[in-house]
Amino acid sequence: MTLTLHEFARSGNAYKIRLLLAHLGRPYARREYDILTGETRTPEFLRSVNANGRIPVLQVDDKFLPESNAALFYLAEGTRYLPTDPFDKADTLRWLLWEQYNHEPNIATLRYWATYGGGWDAQTPAKQAQIAAKQVGGEEALALMDAHLAARDWLVGAAMSIADIALYAYTHVADDGGFELATHPNVLAWLARIAAQPGHIPITA
Amino acid sequence: MTLTLHEFARSGNAYKIRLLLAHLGRPYARREYDILTGETRTPEFLRSVNANGRIPVLQVDDKFLPESNAALFYLAEGTRYLPTDPFDKADTLRWLLWEQYNHEPNIATLRYWATYGGGWDAQTPAKQAQIAAKQVGGEEALALMDAHLAARDWLVGAAMSIADIALYAYTHVADDGGFELATHPNVLAWLARIAAQPGHIPITA
Repeated sequence: MTLTLHEFARSGNAYKIRLLLAHLGRPYARREYDILTGETRTPEFLRSVNANGRIPVLQVDDKFLPESNAALFYLAEGTRYLPTDPFDKADTLRWLLWEQYNHEPNIATLRYWATYGGGWDAQTPAKQAQIAAKQVGGEEALALMDAHLAARDWLVGAAMSIADIALYAYTHVADDGGFELATHPNVLAWLARIAAQPGHIPITA
Repeated sequence: MTLTLHEFARSGNAYKIRLLLAHLGRPYARREYDILTGETRTPEFLRSVNANGRIPVLQVDDKFLPESNAALFYLAEGTRYLPTDPFDKADTLRWLLWEQYNHEPNIATLRYWATYGGGWDAQTPAKQAQIAAKQVGGEEALALMDAHLAARDWLVGAAMSIADIALYAYTHVADDGGFELATHPNVLAWLARIAAQPGHIPITA
């Protein structure tokens, strides 16, 4: 089975898949796209890789799997990174879904607009009108994680899972989007635990 | 094992769980909350049901599982409604994640604002500034589904799965949010296939 990651490497959504692949020790090919010049919106990309025009997409032989957290699940099932208890397994998915609904659209989007997206001032008025709500939503997401991690080392169960890997991706660079992690000490300790795991790689790898 | 659905019944996110439970023939209790008066933001709710202040939440004995699509996965695993092939299973999750990122925040939110949310004109200026983008995003989501369903009866594999149930919930009431389904004939045919399944129940049930 051949794995190819179609990605924009600086994206946390791509990084989370590379981080899991590093822990699993699985080889894979990488293909980079420049989302800033529309390389994921070409007719060929939409037809052959992802009709949704987004990356990352995990290619498994000749099949394409969009959605970064679906790729995490695909790669993790049967490994130590996905609990086998039915409730804990579903609870892991809970965090993956929560990440995409409550965390990523706030924290990752503000990071994107602030950095390679050209800066907040360069965004359209409709997007600028969303900044305040995204700041509140992102702060609420970090606070929820901080409270959850007050009494436990990992988001689900007793070991690092893809819930932790999924949330690590954009949380550890939340300051790029203007978020202050120092007020969330349990999150900071959890980030350090993840970074200290054998096999960890940085987002620049 | 005792199941209790904590819900706001008119929500498509709650309905999708009830629809799957109906197909599975599983008994469960229902507890209704009025989201319009803040019943899911009370200190007790945040402490005991969901720190994220949202419903539906599926209670399994004394454990609570937020995120409607995590509940679908929990209930469907091991049944005909979740494929067992590893890629198809992950592809089913792909649709659940896509629903929460590209479909629900556009189609369900415009429905919510238009109906029990008090009407679009009653929303804050920041929310009204998002309406145009949500109309475009919702239309793109429906068009993507329509193209995907041109050559197949179900979103994944050869039978109805929780991918179909998850997407049915808000698609079949998309007109509440101002969307026109008549221009998406493959979606209309797919909606009819789902509604014709033995055991189907309406959102009002």
